[in-house]
Amino acid sequence: MATQGQVITCKAAVAWEPNKPLVIEDVQVAPPQAGEVRIKILYTALCHTDAYTWSGKDPEGLFPCILGHEAAGVVESVGEGVTEVQPGDHVIPCYQAECKECKFCKSGKTNLCGKVRSATGVGVMMSDRQSRFSVNGKPIYHFMGTSTFSQYTVVHDVSVAKIDPSAPLDKVCLLGCGVPTGLGAVWNTAKVEAGSSVAVFGLGTVGLAVAEGAKAAGASRIIGVDIDSKKFDRAKDFGVTEFVNPKDHDKPIQQVLVDMTDGGVDYSFECIGNVSVMRAALECCHKGWGTSVIVGVAASGQEISTRPFQLVTGRVWKGTAFGGFKSRSQVPWLVEKYMKKVLNSTNSFSPAFLLFAFLPISHGFLLPKGSQEIKVDEYITHSLTLGEINKAFDLMHEGGCLRCVLEVHP
Amino acid sequence: MATQGQVITCKAAVAWEPNKPLVIEDVQVAPPQAGEVRIKILYTALCHTDAYTWSGKDPEGLFPCILGHEAAGVVESVGEGVTEVQPGDHVIPCYQAECKECKFCKSGKTNLCGKVRSATGVGVMMSDRQSRFSVNGKPIYHFMGTSTFSQYTVVHDVSVAKIDPSAPLDKVCLLGCGVPTGLGAVWNTAKVEAGSSVAVFGLGTVGLAVAEGAKAAGASRIIGVDIDSKKFDRAKDFGVTEFVNPKDHDKPIQQVLVDMTDGGVDYSFECIGNVSVMRAALECCHKGWGTSVIVGVAASGQEISTRPFQLVTGRVWKGTAFGGFKSRSQVPWLVEKYMKKVLNSTNSFSPAFLLFAFLPISHGFLLPKGSQEIKVDEYITHSLTLGEINKAFDLMHEGGCLRCVLEVHP
Repeated sequence: MATQGQVITCKAAVAWEPNKPLVIEDVQVAPPQAGEVRIKILYTALCHTDAYTWSGKDPEGLFPCILGHEAAGVVESVGEGVTEVQPGDHVIPCYQAECKECKFCKSGKTNLCGKVRSATGVGVMMSDRQSRFSVNGKPIYHFMGTSTFSQYTVVHDVSVAKIDPSAPLDKVCLLGCGVPTGLGAVWNTAKVEAGSSVAVFGLGTVGLAVAEGAKAAGASRIIGVDIDSKKFDRAKDFGVTEFVNPKDHDKPIQQVLVDMTDGGVDYSFECIGNVSVMRAALECCHKGWGTSVIVGVAASGQEISTRPFQLVTGRVWKGTAFGGFKSRSQVPWLVEKYMKKVLNSTNSFSPAFLLFAFLPISHGFLLPKGSQEIKVDEYITHSLTLGEINKAFDLMHEGGCLRCVLEVHP
Repeated sequence: MATQGQVITCKAAVAWEPNKPLVIEDVQVAPPQAGEVRIKILYTALCHTDAYTWSGKDPEGLFPCILGHEAAGVVESVGEGVTEVQPGDHVIPCYQAECKECKFCKSGKTNLCGKVRSATGVGVMMSDRQSRFSVNGKPIYHFMGTSTFSQYTVVHDVSVAKIDPSAPLDKVCLLGCGVPTGLGAVWNTAKVEAGSSVAVFGLGTVGLAVAEGAKAAGASRIIGVDIDSKKFDRAKDFGVTEFVNPKDHDKPIQQVLVDMTDGGVDYSFECIGNVSVMRAALECCHKGWGTSVIVGVAASGQEISTRPFQLVTGRVWKGTAFGGFKSRSQVPWLVEKYMKKVLNSTNSFSPAFLLFAFLPISHGFLLPKGSQEIKVDEYITHSLTLGEINKAFDLMHEGGCLRCVLEVHP
């Protein structure tokens, strides 16, 4: 490409200061160094973590920065030594890296690769501890190793998932954060079994993905908990079978759920980031085996608490980040799961579809066609352009909005 | 027996009031009703839970009562419908019942049988919500469904583990609580794998049993943590490989352990009952997979707390009661494991010993003889009689005492 090795000047939404509107700037994006990949971002969604850092409440937040971490695009160029992707590849940048070499990756027990964390945590790239972004010579920090609110971004090669080039990038960008987080919390972290009862606290994108994951796992009861009853109708489409609004009850919500379920649920998921709700989520679990997974991210400095008796009598308290999915290995697999559904719904008889159609039978299960696939389109409630990003942040705080996808090169 | 169907008058140590010396009284023990078993207790040990209730700090503690829950004896008589034990059987009374019928027992996920909990929790028997103990007509409450500080006690049939009659009761009485709690925390709750690093907080009987269990599981590092450095020498015999006294460090103990282990231990166990230590035990675990098990029982009303980030980054917080062992099924198995060691050390060539000697090979492991068996004798530091029970309580608070076994019919 003509831009290879050159600084690219493009549009990006810069957060100059906490809690001030983002500004669309002409940003200079330096070429990728060794082990780095420059990506043309085509679509990006917004997530609450962007809003949290933007608000200034994140003590590790650095300004000025380019936020954004749920996106999809095409590789523009690669730095020295990068072999796993090349220009033109369709990719999803992943805030959780996967180097396949560090003790975390090799453990087989976690997806929390540590390879580039020391750089991504402070808004720079590993090789020279510098940013690749600048505005008129002033460096702009990276964010979460992704910075997708930009027409071009530079990421570490261990943070790039190469995906099926036929996948619609305006949809699968969601597989960069919220949807996998919810699905993986159920499949990887809690390992919900068929017949289980599940409580989901918070019916935003992550909570709905938890419900969807629980339904796919065969959960018999999926109880949605939210203080906004308007969310309940939509939640049914994602698998929620019952709804509880804590505002409708005088008793603590954990007691309401224990009473509803003859002793508590088998699994609960906190998808809000509220430490009081995290406690309720633990305490609504069944004695002896109930497992509660913290999915939401609490504000800095806040603490969870409970009586130790809750754990001594058999409840388990866990958490998850990116749903436990190994990013480079498994995001492409999630894209495939989504694509199979796309193929299925259009009655295509591609080999991939046929493989899917018969796999359940060969595994001893007989499932309705498509029942094990994942939703993506259904989470997209709004579409805007990068220039409308401040409006998109406003939308995020409305109950009706799940995901707003921004077209980055309108 | 001549006593069958009769009230037995015998000696028992009665706790008339919190925190007052126990009094050896002539106690009337009523015959067992349907589903109950009257046991002649031969040996009983003391455990910290007895001391906790006796202290008056347990809000569920009821007085007057007969404490004690770690003991062994012989069945004197059985009530109507009791089929699994008969007079003369050697047994260990179990404070954690196992009915094999309730949803807990059937779940396959927990040992916390709920069958008789509603009665044992309030010091009575299920059938008539009455006590079987009285002194001059005044009822004396049961304790933990066991009340072993008595020459005779009455328990529910679901709380009786029938054991090998050749097992020495003055030793295997310890398999009623502390030793299984520690071993099971490692084997059943944490499921420690070979090569793991382990931290044990508190080097009393339970903590040493954790170390022993971890050694048997093949842990590569077993770090003992205690504020009494005198405990360290003895702990080596139970498998502890390194020692840390928090008093020797200015840094928080969790940081000391993280620094010692390149990021934290794989598993930690809190065997004290101190909520601050429970937090340290969680926070000394390795990011991504470290699992902390609460084994100690905290005082009522106390709470544990931590930052949710600890869990979101992959640590798991659990607890255990009786080490997750199913009492009636597995206490006899623990007795067998101990007996194999007894046979082994006396060079007996009984079939049981031969079976043990060759089993490890047949399972693909080549282990030193006896290495998979369990210690019991080694935990017994003092032997007294029931009449000396107040002295035994005093001993418990000395660092040198692990278990004091009382001869109940001296």
